[in-house]
Amino acid sequence: MENFVSQLPTKIIFGRGTEAGVGAEAARYSKKALLHFGGSSAEKSGLLARVRASLAAAGVEWVELGGVKPNPALSMVRRGIALARAENVGIVLAVGGGSVIDSAKAIAVGTLAGRDIWDFYSGAAPEPKEALPVGTVLTIPAAGSESSGGSVLTNEEGALKRALNADCIVPRFSILNPELAMTLPAGQIANGAADIMAHLFERYFTNVGHVDFSDRLIEATLRAVIAVAPRILADKTDYDAWAELMWAGCLAHNNLLDRGRIGDWASHMIEHELSGIYDVAHGAGLAVIFPAWMKYTLSHDTARFAQLAVRVWGVEPGYFDQEAVAREGIARLEAFWKGLGLQVRLSGLGFGLDRAAEMARKCTEGDAFTTGQFVKLTSADIERIYRLAE
Amino acid sequence: MENFVSQLPTKIIFGRGTEAGVGAEAARYSKKALLHFGGSSAEKSGLLARVRASLAAAGVEWVELGGVKPNPALSMVRRGIALARAENVGIVLAVGGGSVIDSAKAIAVGTLAGRDIWDFYSGAAPEPKEALPVGTVLTIPAAGSESSGGSVLTNEEGALKRALNADCIVPRFSILNPELAMTLPAGQIANGAADIMAHLFERYFTNVGHVDFSDRLIEATLRAVIAVAPRILADKTDYDAWAELMWAGCLAHNNLLDRGRIGDWASHMIEHELSGIYDVAHGAGLAVIFPAWMKYTLSHDTARFAQLAVRVWGVEPGYFDQEAVAREGIARLEAFWKGLGLQVRLSGLGFGLDRAAEMARKCTEGDAFTTGQFVKLTSADIERIYRLAE
Repeated sequence: MENFVSQLPTKIIFGRGTEAGVGAEAARYSKKALLHFGGSSAEKSGLLARVRASLAAAGVEWVELGGVKPNPALSMVRRGIALARAENVGIVLAVGGGSVIDSAKAIAVGTLAGRDIWDFYSGAAPEPKEALPVGTVLTIPAAGSESSGGSVLTNEEGALKRALNADCIVPRFSILNPELAMTLPAGQIANGAADIMAHLFERYFTNVGHVDFSDRLIEATLRAVIAVAPRILADKTDYDAWAELMWAGCLAHNNLLDRGRIGDWASHMIEHELSGIYDVAHGAGLAVIFPAWMKYTLSHDTARFAQLAVRVWGVEPGYFDQEAVAREGIARLEAFWKGLGLQVRLSGLGFGLDRAAEMARKCTEGDAFTTGQFVKLTSADIERIYRLAE
Repeated sequence: MENFVSQLPTKIIFGRGTEAGVGAEAARYSKKALLHFGGSSAEKSGLLARVRASLAAAGVEWVELGGVKPNPALSMVRRGIALARAENVGIVLAVGGGSVIDSAKAIAVGTLAGRDIWDFYSGAAPEPKEALPVGTVLTIPAAGSESSGGSVLTNEEGALKRALNADCIVPRFSILNPELAMTLPAGQIANGAADIMAHLFERYFTNVGHVDFSDRLIEATLRAVIAVAPRILADKTDYDAWAELMWAGCLAHNNLLDRGRIGDWASHMIEHELSGIYDVAHGAGLAVIFPAWMKYTLSHDTARFAQLAVRVWGVEPGYFDQEAVAREGIARLEAFWKGLGLQVRLSGLGFGLDRAAEMARKCTEGDAFTTGQFVKLTSADIERIYRLAE
């Protein structure tokens, strides 16, 4: 186990009806909020009306900026920064899923920063040390952005999708009411489950030894997601199943399950290139990339893949052929994701390999010319992974 | 799952050599500390010298109060409060295990309170809202006090052991270096493992339904403890095993694994009466009380006991006789604790039942005349549990 620091400062307010408290929570930080949201669903469901009523009751004024799209765009963030500055807001309140929250985090940094917000995502600027407080009302269990210090943004010029990680953008509070997710379409539910599982896999595949406790915590979280995701797709009003998924999705991506480990994250980087170029949701892209990545890296640590297969997928331990056990685990993952209605091949998403070389190159543009920690992948490796995903 | 709020604000600084940073952490809160510790072991090992050097290097002055004993005493806390007030300290720094940390928390509350500190433990005063900041350097993985809002104190007049829970005493930072535990005697190591497991059992036994995810997190933590505790007893210098135990002990008792659940806590209350009267360590008392409590309450929810037996102890699932599976789980727990050198009967500790009625009565003195949530136990129930533990 590596030395680490762990702190989980986000106040998670979890359960039925909890969005009624958003005004009181926001008022602890400011009397003027930027209310940031996505499409029309939060309006139609009445959620935005309840949020506005709660803000008004708590004496919090607000300005609104809706229209955040999946794979949140730099241009929208720039509008938000201008608005937050002009209106002198003191908190950014995200009502939505990971895209809205990531966009809100970028606005929170950019409003106080003396330089262009993209600099923090491109790596031109060091980690920002200050940001407006961010609060969230989560509507989609998926990205885990509600209690993480991460934010992913797409720069439409150049189709670049890049991530920022900073302590100052960890949300101060997040309201998690599983009921709010019940209106999601099946495809988004499945994408969300894949995203949560991918966050767990990224943490699981590590070269750090003696991490059995956190291995087991990650496995426990995977099993919970695997148990409830099909139940939700069968009955979208199953509160109990939604509650487990939403809590699992939150713990999957904050600074808890990966302490003392060094995660991999290559699959996320490879997927970012995919959804930076093509119109595909992050979770849907991960469902294609992860099995291919697993097949490509399996031989690096067959025992770890076999442990996952046995403990999470219930594969019979194979004492004489660990590789077969490991491969059966990957097959069960593919079968599980297919059962959720996800595609596990690029062709299923309607894409070919024509831009694979370009994506592989962009994915390894950093100083090291590799991506990933479990196995350090070159652009040639990544092209082979795209091919395995074909 | 119940609605809940979760926040884990303690900054955990984990790993080899991390106590060197204690001065810098303390200096964030105050330039004058009360350095609180237990017996001579921290002095002998050189730990206190390193802590003093770190404080000095960070420009933090300090006054010292050592001598905290297991089952920390109200009289020591009163001395600490007087000293903290006289010296105008701004932070209480605990170097030790749960007893030292619990004593430090009481001093932190009492120094700022306008009434006697025991009022907060006896229930005469409401939850305190302010306290001096508390920081810790942990030397014993056991009590979990390093990231919890709990503190247990013994009032020597009347042999009363009572608990306080308050947000304001959650430590601001805790330094967890597994190396610091390597000098512990075997008995204390075993007691600590029992204490950690007891914290997990208290959370596990709940009547709240649809908590499979947190069931699995608790089971994962139990399995980690079960895996490493015997390794540590076989080789006290096994850093990797200590690291897993120390991290598991921390997560076992903060506000993470019990969110959305209602834990039981009867065994803790029953044990507090035991160690309030007799000279027995908390973990050693729990190792006697918990198996008896389990046998007494098994029929309340046999399925839950059977699930624990299968998932944690690896008992073969028994589809036609869940009770046999459940009982085998309890037998394995007793065997495991015996293997660590623990006693699992009162007689093994050298105690009889002569004061059982008195302890049972004191344990249910509250308004409800019962203790525990999973099964609400009367004083008659508790006498029977003491008898099962005989």
